[in-house]
Amino acid sequence: MSQDSLDPSDWGAFRRAAHELLDACVDQLENARERPWQQVPQEVKDGYTITGTAIGETELANRLTSDVLPYHTGNTHPRFFGWVHGTGLPSGLMSEMVAATMNSNCGGRNHGALHMERAVIDWSRGVFGFPDNSSGVLVAGTSQGTVIALSAARLRALGPEVRKTGNGANTLRAYCGAGAHNAMRKAMELLGLGAGNLIRIPDADGTLDLAALKDAIAADKAAGHTPFAIIGTAGSVDRGTFDDFNSLADITAAHGLWLHIDGAFGAWTRLADAPYRALTDGIDRADSIACDFHKWMYVPYDCGLILIRNEHEHRATFAARPSYLAPLDEGLASGDPWYCDYGIDLSRGNRALKVWSALQAYGPDGLGQAITANCHRASELGTIITRAERMSLLAPITSNLVLFTADDTLAPAAQSDLNRAVAQHLQMTGHTVFSTTDFAGITCLRAAITNHRATAEDMQIAIDGTAAARALHLSK
Amino acid sequence: MSQDSLDPSDWGAFRRAAHELLDACVDQLENARERPWQQVPQEVKDGYTITGTAIGETELANRLTSDVLPYHTGNTHPRFFGWVHGTGLPSGLMSEMVAATMNSNCGGRNHGALHMERAVIDWSRGVFGFPDNSSGVLVAGTSQGTVIALSAARLRALGPEVRKTGNGANTLRAYCGAGAHNAMRKAMELLGLGAGNLIRIPDADGTLDLAALKDAIAADKAAGHTPFAIIGTAGSVDRGTFDDFNSLADITAAHGLWLHIDGAFGAWTRLADAPYRALTDGIDRADSIACDFHKWMYVPYDCGLILIRNEHEHRATFAARPSYLAPLDEGLASGDPWYCDYGIDLSRGNRALKVWSALQAYGPDGLGQAITANCHRASELGTIITRAERMSLLAPITSNLVLFTADDTLAPAAQSDLNRAVAQHLQMTGHTVFSTTDFAGITCLRAAITNHRATAEDMQIAIDGTAAARALHLSK
Repeated sequence: MSQDSLDPSDWGAFRRAAHELLDACVDQLENARERPWQQVPQEVKDGYTITGTAIGETELANRLTSDVLPYHTGNTHPRFFGWVHGTGLPSGLMSEMVAATMNSNCGGRNHGALHMERAVIDWSRGVFGFPDNSSGVLVAGTSQGTVIALSAARLRALGPEVRKTGNGANTLRAYCGAGAHNAMRKAMELLGLGAGNLIRIPDADGTLDLAALKDAIAADKAAGHTPFAIIGTAGSVDRGTFDDFNSLADITAAHGLWLHIDGAFGAWTRLADAPYRALTDGIDRADSIACDFHKWMYVPYDCGLILIRNEHEHRATFAARPSYLAPLDEGLASGDPWYCDYGIDLSRGNRALKVWSALQAYGPDGLGQAITANCHRASELGTIITRAERMSLLAPITSNLVLFTADDTLAPAAQSDLNRAVAQHLQMTGHTVFSTTDFAGITCLRAAITNHRATAEDMQIAIDGTAAARALHLSK
Repeated sequence: MSQDSLDPSDWGAFRRAAHELLDACVDQLENARERPWQQVPQEVKDGYTITGTAIGETELANRLTSDVLPYHTGNTHPRFFGWVHGTGLPSGLMSEMVAATMNSNCGGRNHGALHMERAVIDWSRGVFGFPDNSSGVLVAGTSQGTVIALSAARLRALGPEVRKTGNGANTLRAYCGAGAHNAMRKAMELLGLGAGNLIRIPDADGTLDLAALKDAIAADKAAGHTPFAIIGTAGSVDRGTFDDFNSLADITAAHGLWLHIDGAFGAWTRLADAPYRALTDGIDRADSIACDFHKWMYVPYDCGLILIRNEHEHRATFAARPSYLAPLDEGLASGDPWYCDYGIDLSRGNRALKVWSALQAYGPDGLGQAITANCHRASELGTIITRAERMSLLAPITSNLVLFTADDTLAPAAQSDLNRAVAQHLQMTGHTVFSTTDFAGITCLRAAITNHRATAEDMQIAIDGTAAARALHLSK
């Protein structure tokens, strides 16, 4: 580095090293099919230790190429179906170069990234049918979006003085389906409302049972509790099912509650073709929607979205700028909104750029077609499983999630052992990534197709690999 | 894009466009001095609107170059001293290319980025003198780190059942100095504890008055409130002062409370030379430390750190993995810790890589020397201001923060008007960025030197510009 700053003393050398590194990055994207997840060797792990020696940028680029790039999470591979992980996008390589160069702090002020975030929020508002005076902010992911939404819901229930007084002795209760995501629980804990006040309503065929919901609200009111929010799920964790948002909106309105939709991946079926688009009918009636761009919109990690129907409630929950953040009329310190007024973070990286870049490069239609294709792949996978010897689906396929067992002739405990062994073997060999979950009394295999690189052939290859791994395990 | 995926149909064209874009990025870094903040033209803003047309990656790269790169926050410029913004680093361009290519999800599992995050946490633990069984996680920034720390402090005060029951009717009280950051208030609000239960203790010469703190705790106990945390500030917002952490640790221990240190920028004086390093003496006695890598460690936005002394308390506050996240013995689903067990977010981008890359490229010593140099620049700026006609400092300079007025001969209201006008003029012309704050009865100019590109000459140029802007304003 130079004497005067941390900048390179030789910009030409830096530029050459950066171009070489870029080639390694493009190689990796272009050859994603040949580069599945692999175990990090012990010596590479050991080499990550920070020793204190400055190696300079050229050697850094070499180390990034040899010791870092190969050891990714695996979700860039066409047969990665674990958990619900997005694939990433080539546009993300471009956008992140630019983001790192600009180094924008998106908490507020008046600069390009904030205008771009407004464009992304405006577009999202249109997708979900939210009114012009709704607001939104990009966050790390749906977990954080849920915290923001339920925080605004709490303010509506307890009034703006809750910010000063805290929750007090009130027992605020929220309601969600049995298959709702764990982030709902974590948000209730964080807000000091208590996981015990998140009431899980039984499912009727994978969606929240409306009669049971009404009963629970009535019983809680009678017991002196204060219902404050209903949480609908767009894409449940295990089955990928969707609640009936229009009915939830009716119940919410009848009781003066807040309707939050957890649409981490499923919300984006709004961009898909029939019949998948209809899964989110009624989502426009929500008070808030949280979802991720890094899952089914494929943008690089991390990026989520929280939309709030009523901007006043959103701002009233979070805005708190002291004098050193007071705006000026013009210049860098002007502009509105400042996104720090809409959430937890004051300093914020530039998440809008990667979303904007994806929408520009591929268009909303291109992304929507990829989502539709993923649902088709899930359906094809289901057909292959149903036809395969001794394999079976554990639930009908609604969208992009497939639950199955590798051998339905075994006793439950043996099936669970087998499915865990198959998942491990396929991961370790880099063949395919399924995750596991507990469903219908066994640990089963779970495929979440949020992978724009997955082809129809990959579905057959994955199941052929599953059969081979089964044979290997059962022969032991 | 291709028929089968969102990947390019022509990888050669994609590669060429990416290399051209990289050159534009390196040009921008190399010429940072010629590229200050500038207003985004209306037609560029309008052009950010998402229309729905897919433009492809080559045209995307063109638009990023022409319409995006020029409109940064300005903190890459050598005379940006607004708020407390880091400069960014050339190593960040390299690390973010790699991060975008890998697209790692750092919530958990077993892959390179998690091992790297452990290396960064291990190194940070060493810097702050935390024990081997302490834990940490990278977050968006100190705001979120504060939420995590106070959440763990709450669990210690109320027991693990707080996760289920919520805060209940308890009045938990935290104590901080008058100059503590607004994020403390926002965290108390979010956790449902109430900003009214964050007790601001008066300052004695810029640091928390210890006698007043003891009195406040005693009075609250007598009134039936429950003290649970003391928050020490390493680098106050307005003055850059530091509380006496050893004394705070003694008081905390005497009352069985939690000691949290807000060290957003100031914590990193641990890496600086004398006398600045001693400002954080005693920080090793804290229960938790929150700080940012994107401020005074200069890494690209966003990246903060929360360290918790007792890993058990950290995990007990946040861990909650349902069956679909259950670990397997080996393969991708193995490994521990999973960082989702240490905080709010389940999906997490790869923040460790940019920190690791900076530490590798420049070394902890290189970064420490830049921090020391920034403190020297602040001191030099103070000398220049003191010698300048009609300008004066409003407070002694402790570290890197300088509060001053452009004309001490004017009445307070006129000084405030002048200082706001000067800040705006210098921003609008791209000359220098100061922010403003209210201090000692006026709106003053505030320079925070967390800029590794700022030279001694830049300090003189900034004040010459201030004098010229003053003349312009007063002649109106």
